Amino acid sequence: MAGGKLSLSASSPRVDFHVDMGNPFLNRAADGFLTIGAVAVTKVVAEDTYHCLRKGSVSEHTLKETFKKMCKEGAYWGAVGGTYAGMEYSIRRIRDRNDWKNALLGGFITGALVSAASKKSRDEVVKGAITGGAVATAARFINHLG
Amino acid sequence: MAGGKLSLSASSPRVDFHVDMGNPFLNRAADGFLTIGAVAVTKVVAEDTYHCLRKGSVSEHTLKETFKKMCKEGAYWGAVGGTYAGMEYSIRRIRDRNDWKNALLGGFITGALVSAASKKSRDEVVKGAITGGAVATAARFINHLG
Repeated sequence: MAGGKLSLSASSPRVDFHVDMGNPFLNRAADGFLTIGAVAVTKVVAEDTYHCLRKGSVSEHTLKETFKKMCKEGAYWGAVGGTYAGMEYSIRRIRDRNDWKNALLGGFITGALVSAASKKSRDEVVKGAITGGAVATAARFINHLG
Repeated sequence: MAGGKLSLSASSPRVDFHVDMGNPFLNRAADGFLTIGAVAVTKVVAEDTYHCLRKGSVSEHTLKETFKKMCKEGAYWGAVGGTYAGMEYSIRRIRDRNDWKNALLGGFITGALVSAASKKSRDEVVKGAITGGAVATAARFINHLG
């Protein structure tokens, strides 16, 4: 990353992130991390806002807990999104084709990596890989129904 | 659906489903149901094949269990996919725009419907709606990173 430049721009409600790390693979991964992380952070904020509205009170403790959850979920979703985006891009480049098999393979590898990173058993890593592949394929299909 | 025609074609490995029910909303919902259901069925087959290979044996009981799981997961994923596809299409038509907000709204409604259908409490329905919206938005973003 030496000599790479980092530029970040976020504008709501268009939600647009651009990161230039001087390498297309890293760019996709960073894009995936930031966008999916941002979605997760928004989700936590929406959930906790609903809880506060229901309870009718906001305490310092609640805000701290919300902030912790924002960081945790944002980082987790972001890591998964970034890994998948980078993988899918690499596979697309290697295969030189843009179809659902990239999503399947990308999801499979991401699922395996995420399960392995959380120190799961071999069986669970395989299950994670299969589920990852299935979810990524389903997500691709549903977004390309037209 | 009176007078509608139903034509179904599936070719592997291209995986292509076309259902004509004479109404664009129903077409999307059926397309979503079939594609996402097929993905879930494939996932169950892959998972159970791995288990059989690990165990080194296939019994009638295992096959029955696999078949049951195929039907259950296929129907569940299919229902979620179909509802989402129909919703997203309707919202796109109403808003006359094709952006991530369709995914957010479609996922939100689908999440709420799925939670409500499984007889969850009001709080859980809201949580399901928020999670649905977040997942759908994330899936759309990741498939449109380019």
